[in-house]
Amino acid sequence: MKMVDVGAKPKTERVAIASAFLKMSAKALQKIAQGQVEKGDVLAAARLAGVMAAKKTPDLIPLCHPIALSGVEVHVEPVRGGVFFTATVRTVDRTGVEMEALTAVTAAALTVYDMLKSTDRGMVLEQVQLENKSGGRSGTWTRKG
Amino acid sequence: MKMVDVGAKPKTERVAIASAFLKMSAKALQKIAQGQVEKGDVLAAARLAGVMAAKKTPDLIPLCHPIALSGVEVHVEPVRGGVFFTATVRTVDRTGVEMEALTAVTAAALTVYDMLKSTDRGMVLEQVQLENKSGGRSGTWTRKG
Amino acid sequence: MKMVDVGAKPKTERVAIASAFLKMSAKALQKIAQGQVEKGDVLAAARLAGVMAAKKTPDLIPLCHPIALSGVEVHVEPVRGGVFFTATVRTVDRTGVEMEALTAVTAAALTVYDMLKSTDRGMVLEQVQLENKSGGRSGTWTRKG
Amino acid sequence: MKMVDVGAKPKTERVAIASAFLKMSAKALQKIAQGQVEKGDVLAAARLAGVMAAKKTPDLIPLCHPIALSGVEVHVEPVRGGVFFTATVRTVDRTGVEMEALTAVTAAALTVYDMLKSTDRGMVLEQVQLENKSGGRSGTWTRKG
Amino acid sequence: MKMVDVGAKPKTERVAIASAFLKMSAKALQKIAQGQVEKGDVLAAARLAGVMAAKKTPDLIPLCHPIALSGVEVHVEPVRGGVFFTATVRTVDRTGVEMEALTAVTAAALTVYDMLKSTDRGMVLEQVQLENKSGGRSGTWTRKG
Amino acid sequence: MKMVDVGAKPKTERVAIASAFLKMSAKALQKIAQGQVEKGDVLAAARLAGVMAAKKTPDLIPLCHPIALSGVEVHVEPVRGGVFFTATVRTVDRTGVEMEALTAVTAAALTVYDMLKSTDRGMVLEQVQLENKSGGRSGTWTRKG
Repeated sequence: MKMVDVGAKPKTERVAIASAFLKMSAKALQKIAQGQVEKGDVLAAARLAGVMAAKKTPDLIPLCHPIALSGVEVHVEPVRGGVFFTATVRTVDRTGVEMEALTAVTAAALTVYDMLKSTDRGMVLEQVQLENKSGGRSGTWTRKG
Repeated sequence: MKMVDVGAKPKTERVAIASAFLKMSAKALQKIAQGQVEKGDVLAAARLAGVMAAKKTPDLIPLCHPIALSGVEVHVEPVRGGVFFTATVRTVDRTGVEMEALTAVTAAALTVYDMLKSTDRGMVLEQVQLENKSGGRSGTWTRKG
Repeated sequence: MKMVDVGAKPKTERVAIASAFLKMSAKALQKIAQGQVEKGDVLAAARLAGVMAAKKTPDLIPLCHPIALSGVEVHVEPVRGGVFFTATVRTVDRTGVEMEALTAVTAAALTVYDMLKSTDRGMVLEQVQLENKSGGRSGTWTRKG
Repeated sequence: MKMVDVGAKPKTERVAIASAFLKMSAKALQKIAQGQVEKGDVLAAARLAGVMAAKKTPDLIPLCHPIALSGVEVHVEPVRGGVFFTATVRTVDRTGVEMEALTAVTAAALTVYDMLKSTDRGMVLEQVQLENKSGGRSGTWTRKG
Repeated sequence: MKMVDVGAKPKTERVAIASAFLKMSAKALQKIAQGQVEKGDVLAAARLAGVMAAKKTPDLIPLCHPIALSGVEVHVEPVRGGVFFTATVRTVDRTGVEMEALTAVTAAALTVYDMLKSTDRGMVLEQVQLENKSGGRSGTWTRKG
Repeated sequence: MKMVDVGAKPKTERVAIASAFLKMSAKALQKIAQGQVEKGDVLAAARLAGVMAAKKTPDLIPLCHPIALSGVEVHVEPVRGGVFFTATVRTVDRTGVEMEALTAVTAAALTVYDMLKSTDRGMVLEQVQLENKSGGRSGTWTRKG
């Protein structure tokens, strides 16, 4: 096991964007829309949880480097059939922030699950995926299709 | 926002089981099978990351109660088309451990993603979901179908 | 230095309520009222930061016992001259939750400071104090006046 | 909610100084002076708690950037009517350390509260405030009066 | 990998005592004795670091259960040839606290190393060991000799 | 107490190597060799725990600077009489990584202790020591003998 040495890489600007979708019942979506969730404002909590989780990535993913994140933005949007999440994470460092973006959308989505689970335990977190990353030796990558 | 008061609930045994599937390319699966991943033993790292993440759930999910987990077990199994994860979390406490089980499978899956992302950035984490929970006032819940 | 032994004390229900006031300029208050803060929803962020900080108390206050919190509720209310914070923390444990309540209001207030500091660096956090605690060997305590 | 992008800012030396005052009874002050506190050396514990809390700021304040602190110094001094705290935090980074300095004095003060609360639950944390900050685009700021 | 299920075990009082010895040069010992260490009070810092580390044990040791510690006491004593550490950790829980006691003495010793390393990088941490544990199904264990 | 200011030091490449030895009974060694440990794969768990602990060093050692680690590698090898651990930690920063390397080997060793303690509580962690460090103002240091 090792956290691979990135000391010889230059510090460059890097950005990663990830997304996720939490499928839920109409009843759960309605609770969000009507602000009827006992624990509080679901969307605000999810956004904040996503930002904070991005900062905890090296604690959660064992071989991730600790990275000085320069920016994190999390969007949470109720759509047809569920809630859609995107996170954009930026750094100027020696390694990328794909894991930070994936961790952010995941934590945001699990926070929504937590706040609504008494209404719908059957919610499914689907399509947690990297959408785009740029910067660094391997350059730009964009999801196809 | 509030972490709802569970002080009046009795301490009872509670179990939650969650699962997740990380879809990946044949090439990535082959790297796991052949033990060719530079960062180390992927399956062992994923299992351990899952167990450790379960313990960090109240740090990640803002309105989760801190819970004295009595047991955590994470299974990670390469299957056709990807890797399948399950986590079983147990407690004897006033509230359930659904979030701990979901956090465990998610962190385990993201750990696999991290260790293989230089081979396949297109991996997709699918079907993160609760399979079963028992104990507590709301009793047993099992996913249908 | 020691974390004093509480093993012989019975587990009883305990509640602590703390408050704090963050004095700020009219301009800063207006930004909150008009939702013009670049970083996002100030009041929601403060509430959530307070709840999460309560859970981190034993990490911050060296000789605090780790406690199984059963409930945390944080109120954040803009008033004349600033923002007023209260936190109510509950447990069923061997020691009290005064420090958790004080930590919650403090973190909530510092979160507001952080989100508004580009508008007003002169904000002052005043009157962080315990209002009431009940339960345990020493019984009920209420602030006078 | 977002952690605003600071990636385009240059890394410059930045310093922030914060202070706080914990008002307490003569009896509590006397316990400190006479070294009679059961939990141990109050002033040493408070200083150390302040330094450690500065490092945890991005965990506590949701939208704070993780910053590579280059120095932290915490002073804790019993004075007439209470204990006075100051923290000086330094970095060479893209954003300032005001929140780190405020978090340090707050944690130091709450540590004193914790160690003396069995003597005086009525202690009040007053005047948590930034005294001075320098460096960065917005330059030097000093509290008036 | 699993955190083994202890849910069926009764909660009983458990105590563990661990010790460690940090061998150092006469010059390093003299710096402690004369209070000449630039970073501050070495013995107080070590004691506090030990207590705080005990609380972090489940974060550090992957398969350790999170335990509600009821008491932690750390002793740090300069002796001939070095500094001797002992930690006593107590709980009323389903599993023992041997790892917490070992983690406490280790962190205390590494804190001393850190504060004196500019004087003596050759210090050696020796004999980190369990001295005694009591309570639980396996009963009392005492180091021989 | 202070975390000394390193802001004026240049960022340079720094490496530290530490080692440790965990003495254990033949029976415990045999359990590792035969893969009979109930909790799981001991050597993989120890390696991962070591890497993760290196990242937590500033949380554990109060006056350590938070450092952007560029690489961590932990070796765990059963030898005659016990298990031998080495950790190599790298950074490009203003201060060294001796504490990170020492923390890594210690956490790896305590993880082995934890997984085997039901077989042998008498295991002793011996000779936790710095082997070599290079980079920085004080240059290279190598253990003698």
